[in-house]
Amino acid sequence: MPANEFDVSALPDIQNRRDSRNVAIDHVGVKGVRYPVVIMSTQGAIPTIGEFSMSVGLKSEVKGTHMSRFIEMLESHSSPLTQENFVNLARATADRLDAPFCEIELKFPFFQNKSAPVSGAQSLLDYDVVWRTVVSGASGAKFTLKAIVPATSLCPCSKEISKYGAHNQRSLISIEATLLEMVSLEELVNVAQNAASCEVYGLLKRPDEKFVTERAYDNPKFVEDMVRDVAVALSADSRILDYAVEVENFESIHNHTAYARIVGRPDTKIQKAA
Amino acid sequence: MPANEFDVSALPDIQNRRDSRNVAIDHVGVKGVRYPVVIMSTQGAIPTIGEFSMSVGLKSEVKGTHMSRFIEMLESHSSPLTQENFVNLARATADRLDAPFCEIELKFPFFQNKSAPVSGAQSLLDYDVVWRTVVSGASGAKFTLKAIVPATSLCPCSKEISKYGAHNQRSLISIEATLLEMVSLEELVNVAQNAASCEVYGLLKRPDEKFVTERAYDNPKFVEDMVRDVAVALSADSRILDYAVEVENFESIHNHTAYARIVGRPDTKIQKAA
Amino acid sequence: MPANEFDVSALPDIQNRRDSRNVAIDHVGVKGVRYPVVIMSTQGAIPTIGEFSMSVGLKSEVKGTHMSRFIEMLESHSSPLTQENFVNLARATADRLDAPFCEIELKFPFFQNKSAPVSGAQSLLDYDVVWRTVVSGASGAKFTLKAIVPATSLCPCSKEISKYGAHNQRSLISIEATLLEMVSLEELVNVAQNAASCEVYGLLKRPDEKFVTERAYDNPKFVEDMVRDVAVALSADSRILDYAVEVENFESIHNHTAYARIVGRPDTKIQKAA
Amino acid sequence: MPANEFDVSALPDIQNRRDSRNVAIDHVGVKGVRYPVVIMSTQGAIPTIGEFSMSVGLKSEVKGTHMSRFIEMLESHSSPLTQENFVNLARATADRLDAPFCEIELKFPFFQNKSAPVSGAQSLLDYDVVWRTVVSGASGAKFTLKAIVPATSLCPCSKEISKYGAHNQRSLISIEATLLEMVSLEELVNVAQNAASCEVYGLLKRPDEKFVTERAYDNPKFVEDMVRDVAVALSADSRILDYAVEVENFESIHNHTAYARIVGRPDTKIQKAA
Repeated sequence: MPANEFDVSALPDIQNRRDSRNVAIDHVGVKGVRYPVVIMSTQGAIPTIGEFSMSVGLKSEVKGTHMSRFIEMLESHSSPLTQENFVNLARATADRLDAPFCEIELKFPFFQNKSAPVSGAQSLLDYDVVWRTVVSGASGAKFTLKAIVPATSLCPCSKEISKYGAHNQRSLISIEATLLEMVSLEELVNVAQNAASCEVYGLLKRPDEKFVTERAYDNPKFVEDMVRDVAVALSADSRILDYAVEVENFESIHNHTAYARIVGRPDTKIQKAA
Repeated sequence: MPANEFDVSALPDIQNRRDSRNVAIDHVGVKGVRYPVVIMSTQGAIPTIGEFSMSVGLKSEVKGTHMSRFIEMLESHSSPLTQENFVNLARATADRLDAPFCEIELKFPFFQNKSAPVSGAQSLLDYDVVWRTVVSGASGAKFTLKAIVPATSLCPCSKEISKYGAHNQRSLISIEATLLEMVSLEELVNVAQNAASCEVYGLLKRPDEKFVTERAYDNPKFVEDMVRDVAVALSADSRILDYAVEVENFESIHNHTAYARIVGRPDTKIQKAA
Repeated sequence: MPANEFDVSALPDIQNRRDSRNVAIDHVGVKGVRYPVVIMSTQGAIPTIGEFSMSVGLKSEVKGTHMSRFIEMLESHSSPLTQENFVNLARATADRLDAPFCEIELKFPFFQNKSAPVSGAQSLLDYDVVWRTVVSGASGAKFTLKAIVPATSLCPCSKEISKYGAHNQRSLISIEATLLEMVSLEELVNVAQNAASCEVYGLLKRPDEKFVTERAYDNPKFVEDMVRDVAVALSADSRILDYAVEVENFESIHNHTAYARIVGRPDTKIQKAA
Repeated sequence: MPANEFDVSALPDIQNRRDSRNVAIDHVGVKGVRYPVVIMSTQGAIPTIGEFSMSVGLKSEVKGTHMSRFIEMLESHSSPLTQENFVNLARATADRLDAPFCEIELKFPFFQNKSAPVSGAQSLLDYDVVWRTVVSGASGAKFTLKAIVPATSLCPCSKEISKYGAHNQRSLISIEATLLEMVSLEELVNVAQNAASCEVYGLLKRPDEKFVTERAYDNPKFVEDMVRDVAVALSADSRILDYAVEVENFESIHNHTAYARIVGRPDTKIQKAA
């Protein structure tokens, strides 16, 4: 191809032109970008597949952002990815795009190696994790850790009113916490699992199945109980600035979901509960 | 705008050109077309929202089909839609597109008005329905009815090995049947619900919750039991030419699904089981 | 079954017991409840299929809410559903559940009857609508209308730097507005469509396809342009208290999405832009 | 816990009991099992995240399969996973479960390192891959490779009838091939990309954007053209026993999808086309 025609200096840069509408944009960027990443965890450096959203604020006088630079920044990310260099990636992206603000969200599946409760048989349990960071000149950097954890819930009402049995189901417990100090993923997952009627496992032999069945029956929990137990645990943790916890029960007796949600802020009643 | 420039007779018809690759296309058409429809059911004419896929076979010598004609045919469909005029819509579409073959699939949510088992409280239960028809000059018309029905399953193994309780969960029972004679949606839904540990309901008061809890515990079913019970019922029904039944259990003790599937054909062992 | 065993007065009401954790719950309720609804619109009463989320706040001293009452309230809703009786449904739900707060979200597909721009051929365009209301003793009732509208975007940069052609793609423009006075769905949809390079249609004949191709090429828009044009229009509308607009472009040259988002509040620069 | 109560020899094995319905089950197993895997590719051993479905046939006289053994087999899989030891995993699973038949499906995201066409800037392109194997005593082992590849399509009709511009959009090209001999993933991906108007990339600088815009405009393709070009290429490949190719265009001028599908078998006209 002719060198001159494709010479970048010969091509107009429309995005850099002035915009006359006088409207700043809160977020502009890319979504749904899948990339392999290596996450630094307490288990060491773990390869997984991430889905990134990256955005910056755009000043009112500029026509457009340079979308390709988000992918350039992603290409250049440090590996393994720690929470610290994830925040630094957002800082560098804000700089590269001359932006007042940058937000990056990274969602990835993570795995916990679990031993079945009686047989000790090993298997992996998968859950989703979200890292989010917001950096801005005005307010510094913020890091949020989210874990979405499957578990079993067994209905206290069903147990109490029935001669035998109790309806139970899979639940999803989502904890999102803004961290003041390092909190490991495994700690959040434990908080979630402790709040449920029972943990779930990839592999259960018959003695294990007997154990989890009886464990859940001995430990009934409403969706309200689970969300409150998580809130109490997080409110007592001084490393956490604020949090949101949501629990969904995929009811075995209905075709819809029961759910509950608590948002905990430094100044709310939830903190006093601790 | 200038009339002549947009005059259809002045615009080339690329699709109608000859194709030299000598490759016939099995299916070409449109997918993901949402349209409101009125379905004729045993409850009368019921409005719902359909999602259509429509395709035809394309002869090897023709470059392309005329995609806009699918939407024209959809616009012209008879309302309320009966199984018969649904098949006729496929016939007319094959004619309009000069095609050897036409397949139409219509997916829509349907609702069953249910009374709670003790209180009699009324509510709706939603499930998905698929109508599918294939018409061709060679083999005539075929109509397939599919119902995807939520229900409760309770694990026989968990019940037998545990001192108390038993894990249970929501299941989806999918029945797809090619019909020789009219079978109502409600009949297929009943076959599915009868094969489960218990039906699910939109609304259950406390006495109803006691009832369904005990009912499921009295009636444990593996995913294998449910798929077999449906297969036995369908195999005994002479109005059904062939069928596929699939059951998925959203296990309350795992983060994955257990499933089973049986395909029944006129000449298979399943038919002999009847 | 024995009448006394299932007599509701003989069954304990666990949900009504005291909770000692001293943690109020922000939201507790049901999600993913599909129900047929009739929506009152400027086109008259239109049947569609809704998906409801309903939640209330729960006082710290109460153990649980009564989930079945959400479905009872839904069963009792006025039909056709106007924005006004939708808000009243939330008020009545708060009363029925003795709650300080109730939020209801209703998502449904809606259809616009469109004439193709040259041929005038009729077809329907589908988009998603969300109604949301929050009622509380403290702050009264709030109603939010959201429309999620498909459209075409054509890249100004690609057009300017290329000898011919320009990449274009389907976009989704989401507008969510808190209303001070009635704004019709059709008005929001028009704001969205006017901000795009071109509208999309269900059915286009060849002269129409020529028209929309040239129209998009004549009217290139970045994702930043679309989100700003919507923001300017909404900021100038005194019937709207606040809004969020988000645009996503399903880029034809990438496997990810470009997006932009502006949140407009009474006191922000966006309002001043009007 | 008391050792004897949880002793596996003391627990009944319900699954092993006789079933009297005389109905064999085509597939019974687990679905939606996420597990990290290392895939052996032409690029070496690549870590990714897999989603497994595993099923066996169940004889008519047996009540149930042992679901936990699927996860045991998965835990024991050889790593890195080659196509050969993937087939061996299915063989071993059939043996372990004493089954006449085993099918395993593994879906995972894969990444292609691409250089932008003018600037040479590096980035990754993600696509989905499916490995499927069926092993049975009767008919041996079969291995199927599927690649789902994003690309750009530009409409020949729109180009020809318009004074300027042409609508274009992202497409997904899915190729599923039963292999007689080893075919690499990269080869299938190349077949898909060659059939499109242009490839897509993660990262494009302005000179690249000019290039892909002009390239697509110079190379218009209907969905029918793409599906046929893939069919011709696969039909000519003697390492491929049979195949299915499907192309979906996410039309930029509509809110629905255009699609086409060809199934190629050893004895069909498509093979003759080669």
